[in-house]
Amino acid sequence: MPSISKKGQLMPQSPIRKLVPFAEKAYAEGKTVYHLNIGQPDIKTPQIALDAVKVHSLDILAYTRSEGSDDYRKKIANYYSKNNINVKHDDIIVTTGGSEALLFAFGSIMDVDDEVIIPEPFYANYNGFSTASGVNIVPVISKIEDNFALPPIEEFEKLITPKTKAILICNPGNPTGYLYSKEEIKQLASLVKKHDLFLIADEVYREFTYDGAKHYSIMEETGLDEHAIVIDSVSKRYSMCGARIGCLVSRSKEVIQTALKFAQARLSPPTLAQIASEAALATPQSYFDDVIEEYQERRDVLIRELKSIEGIKIGEPKGAFYCIVELPVKNSDAFAQWLLEDFHIDNETIMVAPAGGFYSTPGVGTNQIRIAYVLNQKSLVKAVRILKEALKVYKD
Amino acid sequence: MPSISKKGQLMPQSPIRKLVPFAEKAYAEGKTVYHLNIGQPDIKTPQIALDAVKVHSLDILAYTRSEGSDDYRKKIANYYSKNNINVKHDDIIVTTGGSEALLFAFGSIMDVDDEVIIPEPFYANYNGFSTASGVNIVPVISKIEDNFALPPIEEFEKLITPKTKAILICNPGNPTGYLYSKEEIKQLASLVKKHDLFLIADEVYREFTYDGAKHYSIMEETGLDEHAIVIDSVSKRYSMCGARIGCLVSRSKEVIQTALKFAQARLSPPTLAQIASEAALATPQSYFDDVIEEYQERRDVLIRELKSIEGIKIGEPKGAFYCIVELPVKNSDAFAQWLLEDFHIDNETIMVAPAGGFYSTPGVGTNQIRIAYVLNQKSLVKAVRILKEALKVYKD
Repeated sequence: MPSISKKGQLMPQSPIRKLVPFAEKAYAEGKTVYHLNIGQPDIKTPQIALDAVKVHSLDILAYTRSEGSDDYRKKIANYYSKNNINVKHDDIIVTTGGSEALLFAFGSIMDVDDEVIIPEPFYANYNGFSTASGVNIVPVISKIEDNFALPPIEEFEKLITPKTKAILICNPGNPTGYLYSKEEIKQLASLVKKHDLFLIADEVYREFTYDGAKHYSIMEETGLDEHAIVIDSVSKRYSMCGARIGCLVSRSKEVIQTALKFAQARLSPPTLAQIASEAALATPQSYFDDVIEEYQERRDVLIRELKSIEGIKIGEPKGAFYCIVELPVKNSDAFAQWLLEDFHIDNETIMVAPAGGFYSTPGVGTNQIRIAYVLNQKSLVKAVRILKEALKVYKD
Repeated sequence: MPSISKKGQLMPQSPIRKLVPFAEKAYAEGKTVYHLNIGQPDIKTPQIALDAVKVHSLDILAYTRSEGSDDYRKKIANYYSKNNINVKHDDIIVTTGGSEALLFAFGSIMDVDDEVIIPEPFYANYNGFSTASGVNIVPVISKIEDNFALPPIEEFEKLITPKTKAILICNPGNPTGYLYSKEEIKQLASLVKKHDLFLIADEVYREFTYDGAKHYSIMEETGLDEHAIVIDSVSKRYSMCGARIGCLVSRSKEVIQTALKFAQARLSPPTLAQIASEAALATPQSYFDDVIEEYQERRDVLIRELKSIEGIKIGEPKGAFYCIVELPVKNSDAFAQWLLEDFHIDNETIMVAPAGGFYSTPGVGTNQIRIAYVLNQKSLVKAVRILKEALKVYKD
């Protein structure tokens, strides 16, 4: 029997996936499960995007250009200009989700055993993409006590080696909800210029900022044209995670030309989803105003309810729709499983994402969970009360 | 300025892409260009698939399961059983095109510097996927004089090293159109069992066989459960290249579990395209009968016309919709460019794919071109007559 690859063995399993059989058991027992674990919003996709595919006039569902059509990319560039990001359509490569944009970025700038520095906790799939690409993540721990603000820039600098090729941030952050300030972005920009590194920013939650805070993109920073690579996606912006459309944005011609070769090898991004995504760009501002207001209210409800629980720490989010909570438990994996298997109130329980999978340093974050506030406020209140009661009786 | 990766530098450009500016120049000059260069069929997508997305009732364009829904995979398993391939739905992972299926297969079974043996000429993007995965292609030359039949199995065996992990075939072949016989598949099966290798078969052209010949899948071979991996796609079968839906099929639990981790990292295949692809499975047999009849007639017309040209060799296809032709020129890249730039008959010219990019051995195939017979018969006749006249005057 031939053996699978070392890479395949090392590929991490999704931290949530391990819990799925226990969730299925809970359903089978007739329990209601509040899903605090997932990044799939319950917000409706803009009607304009849903309708666009209903009225398509295609006879042949053909390939598009590997980098996406000129028309679509021009409209994306126009979207960016409204967000104070000045790029041309040929600074953009349309990808199959933000995932593929990140894979193209990793492939274009890093070889096997190269290093990328990432503040942790970070989006768990960065682990998968780095393993798939054969590159190593070098983590810098950010702290829940600081709401996961940027660690001191010296902490980054002392980790730089000849193998370091890039710093990767997610802004606003999944799983932290932290929104980097202009000053923090400027510190990162100085550092990558000083050491001739790339700065990759996953900005898929750009619109999701609260309390009037404004997102500051790495693309707004001057002098960073040869360094900055933005990863973007329609998934969260328009609640169209299933479209699988994103893009890679860089003013570096070399990065774009290289990423384009990866794009050509896989031929084209999905055509129907590009039709929906192009239409989504005409979504009225009122849609976003409503969505942001709803998320801000959810966040407020979530934080208010969480604060009624004693003995926990909360990383208060300023953006995205996630929140890291540190619990008085030893192992949040076991706790999450126990919630599904052995705990319920009136036949209702919760599913949470254990946060260990969001860290690369072993043993860190294993008493934390990530809560996605993608449920309505009433459900959030119920869910947090279940968490509160559960912590009263849980023994690890 | 930070530098791009070695991998990125090595990524090959599509062999056709280099010609695109010359084609655009030809259009600008008002020329008609017959595209013999592309694998995008002109055949209409089944109406049932196009309609399925028009009547979708989605409120939220959400992620699907990373491996595709149970329902869709059960229907795919049913499709396979009609093709004498007995697999269960959990032997299948739905992917973003055959491209992603191949990337998952490479990642699951090969590490950096591992080797995969491939008969050449082969689908040019295998070069891109192997570079992206850091694995090395070891080519075995198949010959136009044999219509690109399987080279003697000893030729494969003598290339096997401790780094060899797999043999990859495309059946029926792009760019050769060769359909491997049951006997040839059995020879490959014996060899991979003897040396404990994987056998990957790209069977995306399964339906496209002519003269009553029947496709024999590696999945029909007994004793190969731990070795066989099939790459599949809806792109050509239903003329829905732009859907970007394919699948990886294997009875090896270890391969499936490993590929699933790669699938989880990228979250899900595109949702709208899965709706269209699931609907496409109900395409009536008459659609395929018509399409196959049309392609067989095109092939017959193409070969008849080509045979009127002196001094060329033709690899006569038995499947897919490609044909390799060896020309009395030194460099088919230069010839293809010349056709677009400097030759026309009544303002009409042709675009062909130089075949050098389909070989991994340097200098081989550089006097060959690939012709895709994806044009109607009248256009094919005109196109071959342009080729004939062009060869009379071309000097390299």
